[in-house]
Amino acid sequence: MKMFMSDNNSGVHPKIMEAIVNANDGHDYSYGNDRTTEKAIEKICELMGKDVDVYFVTTGTAANVISLSGILRPYEAVVCADTAHINVDECGALERFSGAKILQVPNENGKINVEGVRKFLHSIGDEHQSQPRVISISQTTEMGTLYSIDEIRELANFAHENNMYLHVDGARIANAVVALNTSFKEMIRDTGVDILSFGGTKNGMMMGEAIVSFNEDISKSFKFHRKQGMQLISKMRFVSAQFVAYLTDELWKKNALNSNKMGKYFVNQLSQFPQIKLKEGLETNIIFAHMDKDLIQALRERFDFYVMDEETGLIRLVTSFDTTKEDIDEFIAYIKNCLGS
Amino acid sequence: MKMFMSDNNSGVHPKIMEAIVNANDGHDYSYGNDRTTEKAIEKICELMGKDVDVYFVTTGTAANVISLSGILRPYEAVVCADTAHINVDECGALERFSGAKILQVPNENGKINVEGVRKFLHSIGDEHQSQPRVISISQTTEMGTLYSIDEIRELANFAHENNMYLHVDGARIANAVVALNTSFKEMIRDTGVDILSFGGTKNGMMMGEAIVSFNEDISKSFKFHRKQGMQLISKMRFVSAQFVAYLTDELWKKNALNSNKMGKYFVNQLSQFPQIKLKEGLETNIIFAHMDKDLIQALRERFDFYVMDEETGLIRLVTSFDTTKEDIDEFIAYIKNCLGS
Amino acid sequence: MKMFMSDNNSGVHPKIMEAIVNANDGHDYSYGNDRTTEKAIEKICELMGKDVDVYFVTTGTAANVISLSGILRPYEAVVCADTAHINVDECGALERFSGAKILQVPNENGKINVEGVRKFLHSIGDEHQSQPRVISISQTTEMGTLYSIDEIRELANFAHENNMYLHVDGARIANAVVALNTSFKEMIRDTGVDILSFGGTKNGMMMGEAIVSFNEDISKSFKFHRKQGMQLISKMRFVSAQFVAYLTDELWKKNALNSNKMGKYFVNQLSQFPQIKLKEGLETNIIFAHMDKDLIQALRERFDFYVMDEETGLIRLVTSFDTTKEDIDEFIAYIKNCLGS
Amino acid sequence: MKMFMSDNNSGVHPKIMEAIVNANDGHDYSYGNDRTTEKAIEKICELMGKDVDVYFVTTGTAANVISLSGILRPYEAVVCADTAHINVDECGALERFSGAKILQVPNENGKINVEGVRKFLHSIGDEHQSQPRVISISQTTEMGTLYSIDEIRELANFAHENNMYLHVDGARIANAVVALNTSFKEMIRDTGVDILSFGGTKNGMMMGEAIVSFNEDISKSFKFHRKQGMQLISKMRFVSAQFVAYLTDELWKKNALNSNKMGKYFVNQLSQFPQIKLKEGLETNIIFAHMDKDLIQALRERFDFYVMDEETGLIRLVTSFDTTKEDIDEFIAYIKNCLGS
Repeated sequence: MKMFMSDNNSGVHPKIMEAIVNANDGHDYSYGNDRTTEKAIEKICELMGKDVDVYFVTTGTAANVISLSGILRPYEAVVCADTAHINVDECGALERFSGAKILQVPNENGKINVEGVRKFLHSIGDEHQSQPRVISISQTTEMGTLYSIDEIRELANFAHENNMYLHVDGARIANAVVALNTSFKEMIRDTGVDILSFGGTKNGMMMGEAIVSFNEDISKSFKFHRKQGMQLISKMRFVSAQFVAYLTDELWKKNALNSNKMGKYFVNQLSQFPQIKLKEGLETNIIFAHMDKDLIQALRERFDFYVMDEETGLIRLVTSFDTTKEDIDEFIAYIKNCLGS
Repeated sequence: MKMFMSDNNSGVHPKIMEAIVNANDGHDYSYGNDRTTEKAIEKICELMGKDVDVYFVTTGTAANVISLSGILRPYEAVVCADTAHINVDECGALERFSGAKILQVPNENGKINVEGVRKFLHSIGDEHQSQPRVISISQTTEMGTLYSIDEIRELANFAHENNMYLHVDGARIANAVVALNTSFKEMIRDTGVDILSFGGTKNGMMMGEAIVSFNEDISKSFKFHRKQGMQLISKMRFVSAQFVAYLTDELWKKNALNSNKMGKYFVNQLSQFPQIKLKEGLETNIIFAHMDKDLIQALRERFDFYVMDEETGLIRLVTSFDTTKEDIDEFIAYIKNCLGS
Repeated sequence: MKMFMSDNNSGVHPKIMEAIVNANDGHDYSYGNDRTTEKAIEKICELMGKDVDVYFVTTGTAANVISLSGILRPYEAVVCADTAHINVDECGALERFSGAKILQVPNENGKINVEGVRKFLHSIGDEHQSQPRVISISQTTEMGTLYSIDEIRELANFAHENNMYLHVDGARIANAVVALNTSFKEMIRDTGVDILSFGGTKNGMMMGEAIVSFNEDISKSFKFHRKQGMQLISKMRFVSAQFVAYLTDELWKKNALNSNKMGKYFVNQLSQFPQIKLKEGLETNIIFAHMDKDLIQALRERFDFYVMDEETGLIRLVTSFDTTKEDIDEFIAYIKNCLGS
Repeated sequence: MKMFMSDNNSGVHPKIMEAIVNANDGHDYSYGNDRTTEKAIEKICELMGKDVDVYFVTTGTAANVISLSGILRPYEAVVCADTAHINVDECGALERFSGAKILQVPNENGKINVEGVRKFLHSIGDEHQSQPRVISISQTTEMGTLYSIDEIRELANFAHENNMYLHVDGARIANAVVALNTSFKEMIRDTGVDILSFGGTKNGMMMGEAIVSFNEDISKSFKFHRKQGMQLISKMRFVSAQFVAYLTDELWKKNALNSNKMGKYFVNQLSQFPQIKLKEGLETNIIFAHMDKDLIQALRERFDFYVMDEETGLIRLVTSFDTTKEDIDEFIAYIKNCLGS
């Protein structure tokens, strides 16, 4: 049975698995000096626009923490939403690995804006306070919402005007590209983003994440940070092969289209119940809904999903590249059954 | 063509790959809460003796650094050979992640003994000096040598008598077990080792390493260190599936037997050349040999291996689970050809 | 002319200076093994109740960061008000030195309560989130307000019930003791506080701060953290001598009484101006007041104080052990002059 | 009675104490923005040559660790003698605060040279190994020996040719200047040293240490590192006043001349005993001598000094700015007495 806890409950897309199997063709150089890794970097350059600096890793936390720690000195800080994954779901890995601070902006529906960041600028030059150096946003956000391309550009411009950089946590970046009907290049490169945590695991890969830098000046030392970050995989080709397949024949898009479509279907189906209150701004594969605690309890016995807030009865449902209408219909049918009784 | 730079030039053993493919059977819990991970832990318990605490990670550096950092407070230190991987080949990851110090003992053929550790004990209680808390040895050592079972037991006893722990970097642990004609339990568990970095990648896995703790008191917090260490793989089953296959039908032994056998064959073949001087104590799949610089230069053009010391003409050759006699014969024939001309 | 930026604008009380001069009597053991340090610790034991573990340092940041870092493992967190000095005025020193995280509770007039801390308890045991381990409050708070003795006891009980500790940042602890008409023992020891940053510099010392622990189990390793924290002063007796004088004939109380009295006098004088709006809850030597920006500008040209918020016209005034009525009268007269014109 | 454990057993020179007392003249700006600190920096500029960047701290460990951590990224390393204070006597503070590694060169009589550093250069660019970035030497060394001016220049040139910096741990720098009959400018500035830990505490100050940078590009961020290093003293004037007195009328020179002279006298007196074997190269105020264990035991009961090696009977004696001939004569007489019996 399909789960709705997260898009990492799913397995690996067959095309990705096939690529992994095919990469197993005898000996090759280790630590990323192999042919497959070279090819994967080429593919990412094609997708993002040329001259990008790429570092493959195996977790999203690693992509975020290694890239941010590669930029930040310990007296500097990253500014992000209080709901950011780096702030609440990475067990303080950023603080430990970088020694730097996280400056939190109260989120609005998972997002932050220039005004929220600006209030930290007064401390620039004051040795009593951590110096803001990077803005980090998540696209798709942890609340299932999206920044528009203009909003990303505005944050990038603001960052650069204030001697800062813009980082994007793209654990679900493909879902965002698809939802906004745009391209990686248009949404990330052309808006002025400096560093992208390019996630693939949640969209059909096995363990495929990449740090993609558009500013080699800040990323040229990342190879050392990745090694210190314990993420220099020796048989790297089995990670990079996943990216080659992911970026061939737009597999990333097909997968993201399905999970978004299923997300929308789920929203539509849930909206038939007046007892269930959906959050606004849900445009991808993450659904937040408030419902009665008894209903949550009943659903929990049959299905797997997260209860975000026991008090207020807030649950999170996530669809995947392999979620089907039938999976959702089963969930909906069960709700009907519960509410009917 | 096979390479001899490291046993991570090889690919993945077909049985391991098959297990990975088979693990791709729909949805399962993420972050190690899946059925495959449960099974892999059972298999490791069987191998090591019951009640072991296991944490899967994807690099050997991660296994070493996360386990040692999980034990050490920043004012404490790990005592190891100056040649230890954690000291010379992990880019200072231990110091960065733990804040603790490495106290180096001059190695003897890659090994250390109780006397080398003892000289650091005088600083216990003195706040001006890092407090020795863990002894770390590599089995197989970085010099291709082995600790005897008695030597490991002696170090474990000494550690425990002095309020310290014994850690084993087992990047090539299977080669050691096979070379000593012993078992994991006898060599590791019964000697009193506290923590093992259980390596699999260099012996046919794709990216399979595990922290194995025999002392839950010190490892119960390792789950937090692993997460902060950016090594909590979401689709964990694809790592643990490798261990299940590795520990089924003694695949680990078959692989290690081949690489050791090929190592011995390589040593035998090289020993026919009076111009080549082999290091002593080579009992596994790592070979160190001194030879003329011109010969090194000629071999380099055809084969892949490491030159450890350009000055003295020291090279390292490593065989793998899939190295064949033909691979070695080709190398030997080329030497003959070079020396004959 | 006296300043009102902070109570560290003042110099050293003559009795403290005399003690420093008298401590200069030939050779003695260094690093705190001297007779003066022994005596200072005795004095602190008398003040706080017996069996306290004391570590002298030279800055308040050091007292906070070394004690908290001595308790926290990097995956743990300290819970405190968003306005806490450790969170906003120590340049991220805690994160850098401990690797741990700060979990912020929105302050109410500089204070937090049990409900604010409770919301972080749900993450206990979850490896994705930093584990709350210490509650830290400031007494006097950074907003010039005070916790009642009952409030401190409630936080201490809550901490202990939840496997946490209570730390008090006492940069202005003497002002609090005096304002609440209590004793150190009653306010700190008897309420269940585990660790106190016992500040003296802001109340007439030259550079006198001490970590005072009431729980030797957690503080027995602090000597190593202090050395690593670069705070093991070699000629320690010149720090500890300050504490001896400070705790003789209740000098701490006399100094705090004066600064509090002057603080109250300042508040009274300022309250005569309807154009000036004082913050509530001011009971010690820190005054917060909103006033017209033009008035702030005029005052700035003659007097030294902090403007906390340029937008809203919020200023902070701090009185010291040596502030006199005349100093304040001069300030008030100037306001009258400005407002009259 | 005078002690010979270290030059920090002594108290404070009367001129220094007088300056501290005189600095206590009412209110002034805190955190180093005061008039005394400005004057002290001017004095240091005069001594060292203009345009130096100065940061006062209160311990030698702080001067070393903050300056080195201000330069090093965590994947970089400092190269120093195995006997360096930063390596053996600072409890791993550098590793903890910087995350970086110490690369040890086996010392020759407390010193290192270019050849010892060169062997680490092969790792430049290799992400598996910490990148050497700073060379650190101690002048006077921990073994009581001295680098010649030419030797310092050679190390500085080598550092700069290899994209590295040269740091000098000058805990006893005045003793070296006096012993070599040179000036600070000639020995430090003109040789190309980049950063000096300018020690004063061991030569008559109370707690006076300064980071002196000759390269503002690398030190402009040191103010943040000092704050994070918990060393931004609020009433800074009481530290800087010590430097003003120290650099007035060459007090530093007078003090160092006495301690060196007494050191030489001690060496001469000890050399009369054939049973005592002095180390070579002793030119300042630190004396190392081998002697019979029974004699050590007897001396220990009357005098204070360090036994460096119980096994080989090595002791260390240190003279101070206030050591007199009588102090030494008493020690010598006691030896005579012991050996006579």
